[in-house]
Amino acid sequence: MEIEQGAGKIAKCLRLMLTDKPGHLASVMTAIARQNASVGDIHLMRVGRTYNTREIVVYVDSDQQFEDVVDAIGNLEGIIVEDVIDLVHQVHEGGKIATKSQVRIETITDVRQIYTPGVAVICKDIERSPELAYKYTSIPNQVAIVTNGTAILGLGDIGAIAGMPVMEGKAVLFDHLVSVSGVPILIQNHDPKVIIETVRNIAPTFGAIKLEDIKAPECFEIEDALDAMLDIPVMHDDQHGTAVVVLAALLNATRFSGLMLSKSVVGVIGLGAAGMGISKLLLAYGVKEVIGADLDKTACERLIAVGGKEGTLDDVMKTAHIVIATTGCPGLIKPEMVRKGSVILALSNPNPEIIPELAIQAGASFAADGKSVNNALAFPGLFRGALNVRATRINNKMKIAAAKSIAKHAEENELVPSILHPEVHKEVTAAVERAALESGVIKHWD
Amino acid sequence: MEIEQGAGKIAKCLRLMLTDKPGHLASVMTAIARQNASVGDIHLMRVGRTYNTREIVVYVDSDQQFEDVVDAIGNLEGIIVEDVIDLVHQVHEGGKIATKSQVRIETITDVRQIYTPGVAVICKDIERSPELAYKYTSIPNQVAIVTNGTAILGLGDIGAIAGMPVMEGKAVLFDHLVSVSGVPILIQNHDPKVIIETVRNIAPTFGAIKLEDIKAPECFEIEDALDAMLDIPVMHDDQHGTAVVVLAALLNATRFSGLMLSKSVVGVIGLGAAGMGISKLLLAYGVKEVIGADLDKTACERLIAVGGKEGTLDDVMKTAHIVIATTGCPGLIKPEMVRKGSVILALSNPNPEIIPELAIQAGASFAADGKSVNNALAFPGLFRGALNVRATRINNKMKIAAAKSIAKHAEENELVPSILHPEVHKEVTAAVERAALESGVIKHWD
Repeated sequence: MEIEQGAGKIAKCLRLMLTDKPGHLASVMTAIARQNASVGDIHLMRVGRTYNTREIVVYVDSDQQFEDVVDAIGNLEGIIVEDVIDLVHQVHEGGKIATKSQVRIETITDVRQIYTPGVAVICKDIERSPELAYKYTSIPNQVAIVTNGTAILGLGDIGAIAGMPVMEGKAVLFDHLVSVSGVPILIQNHDPKVIIETVRNIAPTFGAIKLEDIKAPECFEIEDALDAMLDIPVMHDDQHGTAVVVLAALLNATRFSGLMLSKSVVGVIGLGAAGMGISKLLLAYGVKEVIGADLDKTACERLIAVGGKEGTLDDVMKTAHIVIATTGCPGLIKPEMVRKGSVILALSNPNPEIIPELAIQAGASFAADGKSVNNALAFPGLFRGALNVRATRINNKMKIAAAKSIAKHAEENELVPSILHPEVHKEVTAAVERAALESGVIKHWD
Repeated sequence: MEIEQGAGKIAKCLRLMLTDKPGHLASVMTAIARQNASVGDIHLMRVGRTYNTREIVVYVDSDQQFEDVVDAIGNLEGIIVEDVIDLVHQVHEGGKIATKSQVRIETITDVRQIYTPGVAVICKDIERSPELAYKYTSIPNQVAIVTNGTAILGLGDIGAIAGMPVMEGKAVLFDHLVSVSGVPILIQNHDPKVIIETVRNIAPTFGAIKLEDIKAPECFEIEDALDAMLDIPVMHDDQHGTAVVVLAALLNATRFSGLMLSKSVVGVIGLGAAGMGISKLLLAYGVKEVIGADLDKTACERLIAVGGKEGTLDDVMKTAHIVIATTGCPGLIKPEMVRKGSVILALSNPNPEIIPELAIQAGASFAADGKSVNNALAFPGLFRGALNVRATRINNKMKIAAAKSIAKHAEENELVPSILHPEVHKEVTAAVERAALESGVIKHWD
């Protein structure tokens, strides 16, 4: 399960002409709000004599809802809907990434250095001393972003190719946030053995492997096998990226509510990739007890194997100080099930297992949904840090260090910071580097 | 076999202070020439009161030769060797390529479009209509550059990782010359079955597959199998990229010497990847007869299977109007073997099978070595053109169209144009597109 940010899956842009008098923008905002849609950026595009032109990004859940928004605005006086721009399709057109040269090519001398005959010297150096690949190639900066398309966002098994826009999105964030080269690899196959073999065969190309949107339970087998085979980090982001951000959120949530995380019983509802990743990291962090609930018996067995306990939904709600839900079932948690003083993170998107306000009314000391819990807070710094020190894996110490660093950068009223926080990725990177060096999971050359 | 450009494998840069009087630069050039080294770019870096500072790129074959150059220049009066810069190592440091975002990320609105929640709409569109992957992802612009490292340049089987600098060099040229995203894929394995399976598994990620520096005979099996399995172009550059440039060179060489290519008997000495690729393309072009010589019996059988004839080195030299040698054996062709009026391309680098001047003295009507025959003249336009029209393969018509276009852009005295010729790649692309459309090898969606 990918934990998504924010409700309203469809972004549209309205280009409006508004009479330049006080109150017109306000009336547009009100009209949008009445249709239960939300607003993104607003840009003032042109200041005219009697009209101003603005572009307003609107988030809706359906095309029908968007039509209602347009109708409502169209009925307002002094406002003209000039154009509707499909921002999302526009930004994805032509793809979002490219392999770009990082060297200058102006003369034949340049070509002769980067290509034959000059390049032969570098090849021979690396043949003699393989560790020089880390100095003279892009390998140590490249992370494969591997999917088989079986669990793309909350959309399920839509196939690897239909998952490409998400893989490219990860590569865009990698580049933008930490200058890592993300390389999407699409494997249209359901057999874990095929994924494992294929990734193993191409692994020499990369400094690390990021598994992405591969469904449970195959994701566990694939990650474990590759982690054991390869001496570079292998991380399934839906498990561990998510787990790191949830741990960061919990560090702040428990602070807000006066609980102590390590002395708490944590209940995890839904033991898919995210639920299992969260459970494992919380156990590694040292929480007293993790009770997990899942309708799938083998999922519970998997939790027991790593030191957790099995329980029903009722057991969890009755005994846990902290409840984390990653089920994809909106409204699963009823207000009467909420234990007094508990912390509840209902993380399914776009609709949570319980609306935070309801949980608070029912007695929870703190509650939040998954809007702000975005694993793009974790994976950039986790991989950048691991690559920087040539870590052979991303271990729990590194993940916990990342979570603490993320938690620290939240503002007073935030659970976790924005993924565009200017410092957080740099600090997560530094924390991960330190934890890797301290735990000694560093590649040594013979 | 990779046909390389130019002699002198090692590029070094000398930073010299020269007395600002006529003749000092000339004396440096003379000193370099006396050591049999050659000169690349010369940059005037600083004009001082009595001294000027210049950086001079020198090509040598060995470190010893370079030391001799430095000593010789050091002994000149009025010239100080200020510094020696290892340009090649410098330019390769940190790798030469990166995956870069092609979209803007400034606000959370931007993130919500390229990533969740906005991206979900694009994924669903592609799930419904797979051809939209060609509109909304980077797939149709991505070419995998696949090697197992068994025939890197003229260096032999140095391993896939040591081959990475060459793969990156190809990606740099792809980006610089035709804006294709080259994605190196290193597979450290000698078994053709493993290469075939691995490439097949990751193929959905790419618009085309470029096989690179894989040794014969495995390269034939791998290319044939993938070409049959996949509905995207698969091309082994060492065979076909080289063949296209050689055909272009022959079109001009026969023009210079008054021969008619289609009525000529062509002898090919050495039937590795390059020799076989050349033979196949010449037969497709319509030359009367191709006689091949190779010490490996199975190589000759392979030629016979595609319509060529087997002969000894002597047979070839006695009967062929045109001789193409790609053996890697310097001096293999003795002057007394040269047939009067023949055209000889002795393509092995850095040292050809016969020095062109010797061949002319012995009676050849035209002779050239492999210095200018660079397959970077062909592959950028071949792939760009194929991708532009969604060709399912790169067929002989497309290769011949590319060769003709390359030949046309050579200057009066050139066999083929420079790879930095400002128009050639654009024109090759257009010629390849036209040939693909005319021969109907275009992907159609159901």
